[in-house]
Amino acid sequence: MNEFGTKYRVGIFGSSHGPCVGAKAEGCPAGSKISEAIIQAELDRRSPGKGAHTTPRAERDRLEVISGIVEGKATGATIVGLVRNKDFDSSVYDSFKRVPRPGHADYPAMVKYKGHHDHRGGGQFSGRMTAGLVIAGAIARQVLDKQGVRFLAQSIQIGSVRMEKVVPFSIAEKVARANAVGCADRDTAECMKDEIVRAHEDKDSVGGIVKCTILGVPAGVGEPFFGSIESDVSAMMFSIPGVKGVEFGSGFAAASMKGSEHNDPYTIRGGKVVTKTNNAGGVLGGLATGMPIEFKVAFKPTSSISRPQMSVDVVKKVPVELEVKGRHDPCIVPRAVPVVENCAASVILDLMLQGGFL
Amino acid sequence: MNEFGTKYRVGIFGSSHGPCVGAKAEGCPAGSKISEAIIQAELDRRSPGKGAHTTPRAERDRLEVISGIVEGKATGATIVGLVRNKDFDSSVYDSFKRVPRPGHADYPAMVKYKGHHDHRGGGQFSGRMTAGLVIAGAIARQVLDKQGVRFLAQSIQIGSVRMEKVVPFSIAEKVARANAVGCADRDTAECMKDEIVRAHEDKDSVGGIVKCTILGVPAGVGEPFFGSIESDVSAMMFSIPGVKGVEFGSGFAAASMKGSEHNDPYTIRGGKVVTKTNNAGGVLGGLATGMPIEFKVAFKPTSSISRPQMSVDVVKKVPVELEVKGRHDPCIVPRAVPVVENCAASVILDLMLQGGFL
Amino acid sequence: MNEFGTKYRVGIFGSSHGPCVGAKAEGCPAGSKISEAIIQAELDRRSPGKGAHTTPRAERDRLEVISGIVEGKATGATIVGLVRNKDFDSSVYDSFKRVPRPGHADYPAMVKYKGHHDHRGGGQFSGRMTAGLVIAGAIARQVLDKQGVRFLAQSIQIGSVRMEKVVPFSIAEKVARANAVGCADRDTAECMKDEIVRAHEDKDSVGGIVKCTILGVPAGVGEPFFGSIESDVSAMMFSIPGVKGVEFGSGFAAASMKGSEHNDPYTIRGGKVVTKTNNAGGVLGGLATGMPIEFKVAFKPTSSISRPQMSVDVVKKVPVELEVKGRHDPCIVPRAVPVVENCAASVILDLMLQGGFL
Amino acid sequence: MNEFGTKYRVGIFGSSHGPCVGAKAEGCPAGSKISEAIIQAELDRRSPGKGAHTTPRAERDRLEVISGIVEGKATGATIVGLVRNKDFDSSVYDSFKRVPRPGHADYPAMVKYKGHHDHRGGGQFSGRMTAGLVIAGAIARQVLDKQGVRFLAQSIQIGSVRMEKVVPFSIAEKVARANAVGCADRDTAECMKDEIVRAHEDKDSVGGIVKCTILGVPAGVGEPFFGSIESDVSAMMFSIPGVKGVEFGSGFAAASMKGSEHNDPYTIRGGKVVTKTNNAGGVLGGLATGMPIEFKVAFKPTSSISRPQMSVDVVKKVPVELEVKGRHDPCIVPRAVPVVENCAASVILDLMLQGGFL
Repeated sequence: MNEFGTKYRVGIFGSSHGPCVGAKAEGCPAGSKISEAIIQAELDRRSPGKGAHTTPRAERDRLEVISGIVEGKATGATIVGLVRNKDFDSSVYDSFKRVPRPGHADYPAMVKYKGHHDHRGGGQFSGRMTAGLVIAGAIARQVLDKQGVRFLAQSIQIGSVRMEKVVPFSIAEKVARANAVGCADRDTAECMKDEIVRAHEDKDSVGGIVKCTILGVPAGVGEPFFGSIESDVSAMMFSIPGVKGVEFGSGFAAASMKGSEHNDPYTIRGGKVVTKTNNAGGVLGGLATGMPIEFKVAFKPTSSISRPQMSVDVVKKVPVELEVKGRHDPCIVPRAVPVVENCAASVILDLMLQGGFL
Repeated sequence: MNEFGTKYRVGIFGSSHGPCVGAKAEGCPAGSKISEAIIQAELDRRSPGKGAHTTPRAERDRLEVISGIVEGKATGATIVGLVRNKDFDSSVYDSFKRVPRPGHADYPAMVKYKGHHDHRGGGQFSGRMTAGLVIAGAIARQVLDKQGVRFLAQSIQIGSVRMEKVVPFSIAEKVARANAVGCADRDTAECMKDEIVRAHEDKDSVGGIVKCTILGVPAGVGEPFFGSIESDVSAMMFSIPGVKGVEFGSGFAAASMKGSEHNDPYTIRGGKVVTKTNNAGGVLGGLATGMPIEFKVAFKPTSSISRPQMSVDVVKKVPVELEVKGRHDPCIVPRAVPVVENCAASVILDLMLQGGFL
Repeated sequence: MNEFGTKYRVGIFGSSHGPCVGAKAEGCPAGSKISEAIIQAELDRRSPGKGAHTTPRAERDRLEVISGIVEGKATGATIVGLVRNKDFDSSVYDSFKRVPRPGHADYPAMVKYKGHHDHRGGGQFSGRMTAGLVIAGAIARQVLDKQGVRFLAQSIQIGSVRMEKVVPFSIAEKVARANAVGCADRDTAECMKDEIVRAHEDKDSVGGIVKCTILGVPAGVGEPFFGSIESDVSAMMFSIPGVKGVEFGSGFAAASMKGSEHNDPYTIRGGKVVTKTNNAGGVLGGLATGMPIEFKVAFKPTSSISRPQMSVDVVKKVPVELEVKGRHDPCIVPRAVPVVENCAASVILDLMLQGGFL
Repeated sequence: MNEFGTKYRVGIFGSSHGPCVGAKAEGCPAGSKISEAIIQAELDRRSPGKGAHTTPRAERDRLEVISGIVEGKATGATIVGLVRNKDFDSSVYDSFKRVPRPGHADYPAMVKYKGHHDHRGGGQFSGRMTAGLVIAGAIARQVLDKQGVRFLAQSIQIGSVRMEKVVPFSIAEKVARANAVGCADRDTAECMKDEIVRAHEDKDSVGGIVKCTILGVPAGVGEPFFGSIESDVSAMMFSIPGVKGVEFGSGFAAASMKGSEHNDPYTIRGGKVVTKTNNAGGVLGGLATGMPIEFKVAFKPTSSISRPQMSVDVVKKVPVELEVKGRHDPCIVPRAVPVVENCAASVILDLMLQGGFL
């Protein structure tokens, strides 16, 4: 079932080359102040066109809210928001009907939908669908902002360039939002841009890692086992196209650590129970500890590259050399930053509503 | 909501020191041959007591099926299976009522349940709950076995010992099942055992990584976005206590790869569309490509260690030195191997039923 | 959660005086031929304006499909369809903000949404929301039509006028669709119209009963207990505004019957197992028997009447005499006929998909 | 999916002649005081054996809670309770494997489960499954009791005997609980008993109607459309074996009423907004008005009767005369009274949790 959440329930609809892409969200508490300008601003962050490193396709995503918000407030009814599609040329996709693009959903989608899916521009599997994720998340975020919950995603790796510095939340927030790659350090950001430009010149693409930090989630949020924070966040993150890995706190590095090193000792700070370290990434037993929730999301390099690639004609069952023309980002990570951030908000709102925290 | 799945819907119940731990599973197709002996065998793989590296607690988990299976066949009704608890001493846990153990769910559970949860032995957050996961998974697995779907989990890292060899599925299956740490290579398995013994002697613990391979999942299985194979598998894996990361195929390494390198080119083999490489880990756009599904799961070192640790008395709000006595595995990875394997089966059965594949 | 179904999952959105009213539906099998003209025709049946007995409000509901159907076929993605709102005057509703209209959702909605709901024209509780139900149902219906499943709803009572004749399905279908009140007998239809005109002249309203018959549902469709055909159909029917009762087969009359009289004896007809009578209404143990599924739905008289009524000012807590102006149907039953029919289709499609029948 | 609810989620398991019948319930707030003695008392009300009018089968249903309640309090974990089966003779059911009993689920279950279901004693379709419904409901009821929500079901019709008096809640509660048929009037109760005895002597059975009243549900409880109180209550009621109809407030009689007569005028009583009449049955727009919630449930006569009945051998496809021996209630209504009452509690708890009312 292509929906997410129990109390804040999100679904996305549309396709890359159909009339629109959008989201519906149920469960936003009636009376919540929801600014459409803020949703629009998050959509703008996701938009391309800020430099050589993003797709030149002139997407202009104007938010249209057709249900659930009246005079800047949620009415309690289902919220539906969308952006119309324009400026696309579907003809370039006709050849992919029989010849699947490597790295894309083309082949399994052909099989699953027996050829009936909308194949144009990736159709219902397009990265453009993340506009819907952003709409739903930007609504959740505004509800959570009132509760003191803050979200920050940042690029910590693009290709071979890694962000090595640790930057405090408030500075990271300012810097990461101010540069085109979403990195919390200006110098590293420049290197990341160069990495992307190089990939573009090579007719190639690069991947990267986005780190997300969430402040202000009260201890006890989350459900045990199948409803753990990690389960829900990872399920949401893996629904973003191109994601190959998700880890919390110490993540894969935990495998090489000792228990005495990994366990976060408790202490009292300002009258509150906190941990001295945060290897847990803010989650124990699936529940928030009250410490910052921290996770990392690995993105693969963009599948669409201008170099010729080997594929097959699935009907004739013969090899075919294929060229993916169109216009594509050599790296999706910069645009994924706001997607990760807003997606996280949808999950946390759902869990906080489930747990009766608002 | 503490349940998983849409068509094969799994829930677990019980607690570590209550009467039992068990699972309920709905949606197992009526008439499926389900051997209780096979479920028992999987429970036995999860059981401790095979050496110094596992807990000496004499858990004997005898499966009791109280609903849904009659004369070795699923009736179509809800299946309920459980194992009774015995041989435990709850008194050691009384001190943790106010003093949370580092690394455990104690503190956030206290907050969430306002002190009303079953705190004994980790209660409803105990690693023992994975017996329920194994029961549900071992049922799913038998249904899938008839469809030619096979599952193999193996330890590929324990502490600092990594498995470097690549071993074919059928050999890996035989070797990994034959040694106590679930490693597909005998020599590496010995080193892993030593690593665990060392940690035990140090009154410490170690983590590790489990790799899971699934053969025979037809192309097209999976749902787009929120119902992607990765979303569902990761949500399930993160519900296993101690998991800190999940990655598919190239995983986090994808961040440093080029698109030209990462994209798996299609080719024809034996009349079938396959990919030459499998960086995708068998999943594109959330859907199975027909190639082996491969993912890795990172486990943190066991939180219960015999060394004194710093915690706090949450009522008095003062620091307290705490000693976790009890009996605990210095490494949970060996016992996690069958848990990962069977959990994967629950997810794949659900997705195959959802997609109408059986 | 304001959604319905497991495999064919329907949600409705919008509000009476917002931009639109619509539906989203997930799970329509990819490749299903879906004619927008047929959906439009069902919407037209629901539209008012065919005589004195319906509201003079010039609703023209033009279907707009914005997701999930490409070139007359379902793509497998979420389907979203809507109708825009126009020609309304919200000012008449301002007085109801504090003075709830008897028989409407105004008062409990005020309490639930703390005044933040869209109160104009009934907002998210408006009968106009049934346009969304019709859109989702008319899609389901087309899928089921290919499977030989046919739906017929008819008015069997309006006010004091009851339909006494039993008319064969095919004739009933023709006649009921041809007259403005949806009655399978021309003479009775005339009396029903008179009844409605009389109510209108009296500044009053009347209720009625709709009977629905479904042919072609294979034996075995349905799930036990909570997923019974009756559970799902009744849940859907009670979501239609104004419904007060639902009964299957013999219904409330069963209370006065003997077992020997009520049990439907089995026999063989044309090589098939059938029952001689159908007191069961085609359902036993929640599952289809293969006989026609028959149920009746009772509608209350329209709550909006032009006579002055007693209400209260909920803020001042004083009695207030209230007049509901606007334009309203003196009887909703004629327009409810296609709503019942199409709603039934959504439920049956969901259950047939759940049971693997298509 | 054989589960019910969103926040208080109930499932039942077991079968009539398997090891047990039980229920699992998730979402009971941690710390709720749950007396097993009260659950047992509700099970006892459902038990047979109080006279000639109920089955002589010596069912002794001893509650066993195996998860989720520790020292009389909910822990927040899944609650599982069950009753063991004993004293049954399955051999009498063997003949029904090919020859379905009229009025029972036998035939559609055969088709749905392809003969693999547990056919003994009705198996997973048995009326005995309602013990599970009672367990889940009796837990919900205790949580709601603390909130001042009270439930009363009563027999208002058995066969041709109707209860004509209107009795205040507190008296009705006392009287109905004190007699074997659950009727709020002693004299009518005697007539009802006679009616049942007569049916028994005639080797026949009778149906009836149960009325349920719920006091103390706050205004605003319920969700719009698919999550309406009527939708959820009716879905639950229709999951009880033998139910043919459900109506709220005026119910089917509303069809013959005028709007001016049916609309419940608002007034102020004791400073609260109330309605003068309650044709709505306490629900408008799917939401509670704060008035008593009232609904009626029609039960068909017991399908198992000792008279010979006509059926068919589904394999040979020939007519067969069949005798249902076993031991059966000539009327299920008296035992259905506590089932309706407790089932209602599960639904209301779920809706109150969904709406954030506790």
